[in-house]
Amino acid sequence: MTSRNLEELSTAEALRLLAGVPIGRVVFTRHALPAIRPVNHLVADGQIVIRSNPGTVLSAEVAPSGAVVAFEADELDSDRHLGWSVIVTGVARLVDDPEEAAHYKARLRPWVSGEMDQVVRISPEIVTGFRLSPASPATT
Amino acid sequence: MTSRNLEELSTAEALRLLAGVPIGRVVFTRHALPAIRPVNHLVADGQIVIRSNPGTVLSAEVAPSGAVVAFEADELDSDRHLGWSVIVTGVARLVDDPEEAAHYKARLRPWVSGEMDQVVRISPEIVTGFRLSPASPATT
Repeated sequence: MTSRNLEELSTAEALRLLAGVPIGRVVFTRHALPAIRPVNHLVADGQIVIRSNPGTVLSAEVAPSGAVVAFEADELDSDRHLGWSVIVTGVARLVDDPEEAAHYKARLRPWVSGEMDQVVRISPEIVTGFRLSPASPATT
Repeated sequence: MTSRNLEELSTAEALRLLAGVPIGRVVFTRHALPAIRPVNHLVADGQIVIRSNPGTVLSAEVAPSGAVVAFEADELDSDRHLGWSVIVTGVARLVDDPEEAAHYKARLRPWVSGEMDQVVRISPEIVTGFRLSPASPATT
């Protein structure tokens, strides 16, 4: 295996990488069990914004109660074992303001159609991430 | 947007897709908070097998207590909004048998080096998944 450097990412760099990919995974707890859903997202003002349909656990249970969720995105090359992963932990809340919700909806194309969808915002409290990059020749 | 079909996957098809990709994400609860880690995995005898280092939460807390975890993998095309996602929920346990552990270790190349790494097996109890595929012309 090629030598690699494992680098911890700063919060700013982690959020920059997160903003550069369209898909992430929101992770929450339901009835004390871990649950995960792939979603598309955007990063605005340092917060992660996703869309969710009203009937889902995320819209009906997680966001209304201001529960803590995790959000993960990555770009990992499984052949070369290089890439990055970012994990954000924070409180999820529904975006109640109609104008603000409409603004985000226009920028986020949902995967499954639904007229009545809602917008959920995750406020990062803990941001962690790593990057595996090829080691420079001097250090191998 | 092109018309698409949303299809729920059978358990067999979901595990087949999961087995065909090298990277997934293990999701667990720590101190009542959701946590997620990207890992590489294999599927053997209907179970998901991953490697983990002894110092990690997964090895030191989650697997020894037989906690319930989720495991997710996907192949999603964010431009065309096509692809699949599979989510498995089940109990995680350390593989104690040295021969069995060695067998799996030989097949799973870890992302971060570590001599003393352990093998964790997830026994699926709930398997869900979906596939978004282009709608056939007759149904558009």
